Amino acid sequence: MSLAFTLHSTSSQCPARRGEVKTVHGTFQTPIFMPVGTQATVKAVTPEDLQTLEAQIILANTYHLFLRPGHELIRELGGLHKFMNWHGPILTDSGGFQIFSLKDLAKITEQGATFKSHLDGSKKFLSPEDTVAVQEALGSDIMMVLDTCIPYPATEKETIDATKLTSRWAKRCRDVQNQATGQLLFGIVQGGMYPQLREMAVQELLEIGFDGYALGGLSVGEPRDQMYDLTEHGAALLPRDHAKYVMGVGTPDDLVECVYRGVDMFDCVMPTRNARNGMLFTSQGRVVIKNAQYQSDPRPLDENCTCYTCRNYSRAYLRHLYTSREILASHLNTVHNLHYFVNLMTEIRQAIDEDRFVEFRKEFYDKRQV
Amino acid sequence: MSLAFTLHSTSSQCPARRGEVKTVHGTFQTPIFMPVGTQATVKAVTPEDLQTLEAQIILANTYHLFLRPGHELIRELGGLHKFMNWHGPILTDSGGFQIFSLKDLAKITEQGATFKSHLDGSKKFLSPEDTVAVQEALGSDIMMVLDTCIPYPATEKETIDATKLTSRWAKRCRDVQNQATGQLLFGIVQGGMYPQLREMAVQELLEIGFDGYALGGLSVGEPRDQMYDLTEHGAALLPRDHAKYVMGVGTPDDLVECVYRGVDMFDCVMPTRNARNGMLFTSQGRVVIKNAQYQSDPRPLDENCTCYTCRNYSRAYLRHLYTSREILASHLNTVHNLHYFVNLMTEIRQAIDEDRFVEFRKEFYDKRQV
Repeated sequence: MSLAFTLHSTSSQCPARRGEVKTVHGTFQTPIFMPVGTQATVKAVTPEDLQTLEAQIILANTYHLFLRPGHELIRELGGLHKFMNWHGPILTDSGGFQIFSLKDLAKITEQGATFKSHLDGSKKFLSPEDTVAVQEALGSDIMMVLDTCIPYPATEKETIDATKLTSRWAKRCRDVQNQATGQLLFGIVQGGMYPQLREMAVQELLEIGFDGYALGGLSVGEPRDQMYDLTEHGAALLPRDHAKYVMGVGTPDDLVECVYRGVDMFDCVMPTRNARNGMLFTSQGRVVIKNAQYQSDPRPLDENCTCYTCRNYSRAYLRHLYTSREILASHLNTVHNLHYFVNLMTEIRQAIDEDRFVEFRKEFYDKRQV
Repeated sequence: MSLAFTLHSTSSQCPARRGEVKTVHGTFQTPIFMPVGTQATVKAVTPEDLQTLEAQIILANTYHLFLRPGHELIRELGGLHKFMNWHGPILTDSGGFQIFSLKDLAKITEQGATFKSHLDGSKKFLSPEDTVAVQEALGSDIMMVLDTCIPYPATEKETIDATKLTSRWAKRCRDVQNQATGQLLFGIVQGGMYPQLREMAVQELLEIGFDGYALGGLSVGEPRDQMYDLTEHGAALLPRDHAKYVMGVGTPDDLVECVYRGVDMFDCVMPTRNARNGMLFTSQGRVVIKNAQYQSDPRPLDENCTCYTCRNYSRAYLRHLYTSREILASHLNTVHNLHYFVNLMTEIRQAIDEDRFVEFRKEFYDKRQV
């Protein structure tokens, strides 16, 4: 049984569930969305903005912080929380996904990952043990094991090899972890698009035993229905008394659909990145703020939204800021999009608490039809 | 006598003075520094940040807002205050300086200024009457007359012609102004580098009569001492019962020196622009935050500073954000630099109130020697 996760309730009609995760820097409620703070800052907002938005936990990227400013420097300065002035829970990924994204610049061996820095081309190496040491130096609340990401599509043979390597790496991570810090360590289920290999991966990870489990290698190009099927299948295999996390997901629809299938935790750059590109989420669907139709529109982005941006600014002003390339555009858009994602999860939690999540899901789609 | 300006006290040792200016959107204390919000936003901060910083009045640029999003649109949307969500006083310049800066793209005639938009090259025209109409549409609290800027260096003949044209334009602005709005209109003293022409300009403007007076055409490339001499000379010529404003000035030293010479109001892009370029003002002098010496420096930017940035972040973190090109770098640096400028003026006002401004000025320079 995990000491970190507490299950509060489950839907009577689907695998959706309510719970909480306890960390050294506080407890957060699940299902939860984690804003991404790649380089020790959630782009375009302050930690106080995140508090106002009621973000409960954020994610930072081990790969980026390892390269710049370096984990030893962050340790010296008192850890990531103090460095970036965010005193709530932080989850760090292991860097596996970023290294995988470097493609030809990365080489995977039994020992670990050799890769070239995207910043200066210098050669770097991270073993599974190294990624734990880096995350311990950062002082994050939830650490992730180093995993090998599997390209899409991949043969069964490639997928078996990569999945088995991920399990061996997971064991090495768990073995070197310093239990005294109170930092949690989550395993990552690979297995590609093969359900039986995902079953094998879950089995191997459960034998090691982690504080929580992520479904990795999803949303990598496969059809959406396949992603949902693998999520449902994977979430059902994972133990009821541990948090279940789908990495890098996703759209508002993805959040609703994955909660429906039993997932507790999510992260994605979508709300922040899209905000900076002028793509905004509303209860009626997406708004591309540069469009001429908003030029003299005095209404807030979303008349049902209570965020700072919607309470104080018109679509016309937001369009002006965006077309004028003003920094305030990124800020106001990010505040709105993060509010949309955080608030969606609050509504989801309320719906599960009141055992009306299936109804909530239907209403969520109905609003789009308006 | 101006209904807008109230003189509270003057230094017993120099022309420095304390006062206040009353506008439709509130009263501000002088001497004052006005942060610049060129495109209806002070770059990288929110109106709430400006309130927290205790900025009392901001400046917006008529030229930029005339081109984009257009003054008629802003009027339609309820005026500039509502559009940008800043409910304190706003001063708008007339656009003269920006048009002058276009050089070969601008042509000045008796009627007004013809120029090409820097955005799309389209041909535009602004008469003195137009600039008042634009500022009335924006709904600013203090409007500026359209002036012709004089290149540096310029012959006496060129300077006379441009100065006389400015006076004729000033009259046309005053004549068409709608007195019912409560908006103030300030005249601009030209006269280039010729004290006798500045006397002539003051005389002509006083005959028309304005709510306040600006010294224009300074800080255009002349030696610093000449700028200070012309400021002292010009401020002394202007009536005691009206606000005196030096446009586009300046460095912290310039503010201290011009207050010493009797100036009440200032604006400059320096704190905000330098912030975005990583150049920060501190009580001990300037800090270039990208420098390697700050890489692992755990101290705040300025240990004597009480701003949000200095209370919460290390130099090492600010350097990391800057070198990582994070938007938060611009935000935190702008908050700090604006705090430095606003706080400098607060200290200046206190010093004048307590009739120790000359002492304050000495201490200001002494701190740099540390």
